[in-house]
Amino acid sequence: MREGILRRFGGRLPEAVANCDLSLGEGDTPLVELREIGKKLGRGRRAYAKIEGANPTGSFKDRGMVVAVAAAQAGGARCVLCASTGNTSAAAAAYAARAGMACAVLIPAGKIASGKLAQAVVHGARILQVDGDFDDAMRAVREMEDSGDAAVVNSINPMRIQGQKTAALEICEALGRAPEVHCLPVGNAGNITAYWLGYCENNAQSGTGLPKMLGCQAAGAAPFLRGGAIERAETVATAIRIGNPQSYAGAERAARESGGRFIAVSDADILETQNFLASREGIFCEPASAASVAGLLAESESDSGFIPDECEIVCTLTGHGLKDPDIVRIPKPEIHPANPASLKKALDAIVAGHS
Amino acid sequence: MREGILRRFGGRLPEAVANCDLSLGEGDTPLVELREIGKKLGRGRRAYAKIEGANPTGSFKDRGMVVAVAAAQAGGARCVLCASTGNTSAAAAAYAARAGMACAVLIPAGKIASGKLAQAVVHGARILQVDGDFDDAMRAVREMEDSGDAAVVNSINPMRIQGQKTAALEICEALGRAPEVHCLPVGNAGNITAYWLGYCENNAQSGTGLPKMLGCQAAGAAPFLRGGAIERAETVATAIRIGNPQSYAGAERAARESGGRFIAVSDADILETQNFLASREGIFCEPASAASVAGLLAESESDSGFIPDECEIVCTLTGHGLKDPDIVRIPKPEIHPANPASLKKALDAIVAGHS
Repeated sequence: MREGILRRFGGRLPEAVANCDLSLGEGDTPLVELREIGKKLGRGRRAYAKIEGANPTGSFKDRGMVVAVAAAQAGGARCVLCASTGNTSAAAAAYAARAGMACAVLIPAGKIASGKLAQAVVHGARILQVDGDFDDAMRAVREMEDSGDAAVVNSINPMRIQGQKTAALEICEALGRAPEVHCLPVGNAGNITAYWLGYCENNAQSGTGLPKMLGCQAAGAAPFLRGGAIERAETVATAIRIGNPQSYAGAERAARESGGRFIAVSDADILETQNFLASREGIFCEPASAASVAGLLAESESDSGFIPDECEIVCTLTGHGLKDPDIVRIPKPEIHPANPASLKKALDAIVAGHS
Repeated sequence: MREGILRRFGGRLPEAVANCDLSLGEGDTPLVELREIGKKLGRGRRAYAKIEGANPTGSFKDRGMVVAVAAAQAGGARCVLCASTGNTSAAAAAYAARAGMACAVLIPAGKIASGKLAQAVVHGARILQVDGDFDDAMRAVREMEDSGDAAVVNSINPMRIQGQKTAALEICEALGRAPEVHCLPVGNAGNITAYWLGYCENNAQSGTGLPKMLGCQAAGAAPFLRGGAIERAETVATAIRIGNPQSYAGAERAARESGGRFIAVSDADILETQNFLASREGIFCEPASAASVAGLLAESESDSGFIPDECEIVCTLTGHGLKDPDIVRIPKPEIHPANPASLKKALDAIVAGHS
């Protein structure tokens, strides 16, 4: 039974949430082997997906949010506030609702996946649209001091990183040790920072080893490849469409200390990988998630030696594909007579055409 | 770590899947207390939600499908076939993809939640649209004999019930025994049949007791309240919009043997309950799922004595709200200047207005 991360990892989380009882059953997400990706990689490499879309609101954000909202409530706040491209707002709204708190969400004008906005709304959050991009919304939140009533639960809130690190702890538990390489989509860069923290803490405590961190960015939103913040971020992967990452320093440190690196992948590669994962591995993730696997494949194909032979690699799939179903092109359905003989013929053709 | 139900419950599943290694991390879903619903119920009753939307494709169907697809593959089939209003097709397509098999999905023309169709498509299934309703599609599948290549994975496939029963086993494990009352949405009626099987098997083996089963139907699609199949099923809860349930006899038996009953709830009550669960409990489920809680509330309010005092009640929430996000009405976002002073004022108003 999934008891939630406050109960499961209480001893590894800050004192502020020690006695908090907040959970929607987040964490303990599946680690599933990617066998078809493994075949592509070859050389005895085994790849796994950490499927964070299995969290309550469909993304990894739930891990950090349960800790941030619990700490806010313990500290007397009555409202949580965040700027968000989508997944953060869904998580903030859900945990605020669970905690009986109000929630306000700042969003940039423009392309937010409707499923994500629907979640914040249905969970009772008030949506405030800022005339600008994500970075403008973030700036407004950052400039706002916490007042007595309202707590900022964006990733400037250190509790978020604390909660997110638990995914690394679960991976070490499942594999018996850290993988050799860990690949993550990088947008605001909080997650790669958090995983690195988790791996380091676990290694210090239990000697589980340290992976090289591969931070995977969309080519149109790749400040880490450019060496600093960029003005206009653009990618189909909305969850990582961020030009000025909040946790820039943490992510750089994770890459440096781990002997890791950053890589950029095109939107076309992201979408092709998303489709491959769905149609060949059975896993439907949102586009941003697929960046981690697309980055792994690109790094492997570059033959740089970064991906060792005979190693274990974990790719975090940050969110569920249902977050952004409009990305799927639905073909015009074939209208079919409902009789067995005709159906049998259609099935034979489908089987014959299946590779 | 969620290892999947074949590994976890192997000894309780049919011999046919004993050596199968198929999993997307299904099962082991959260059981979360519904505290606000508990307050509405009063009289010391504790209500829990079994959150089946946390399964890989976002619904309970994954439990039965992993068993059905594994058995089909073990039996030499190369293609799986189903008729489906949505959730079944998503699960069939995902597990077929995982198993390297082809998948064909028969859907009725009309209102299928787009998120569900998107899943079948992205997982590589071929969609064949039948000119008729779900019952017509089902009839076509039922009339089709399994050929060597293709296996029918609709609920006429007994493996489905075997997989779905595992949810009842998990509930007994989490609570230490069966609850006094179990509430389920009833459409095709396979799930209530499966839970009852699971509870009975577990009680025979471990003496965990038996709940009364409350089958909750949408008022416009309520054959069990009418005493037999109906012609035109209509409800906003697409996943239970079924006039001629496949597992009619099994569901009737579950109600009769358990001392249970069926109840019908209006679409308005379903949507109101869906909203309550999202905004007050933090759980976003699809409309059909909310029928179980709406049914519980209606039964409790009727003061029939069916719901005992001081008891434990489990409601199955069959699918994730992201399956059908279009049901959420998004208010026109308030455009807001991105400065702290103005934000502070907006937050104060939000906190003041929050009940």
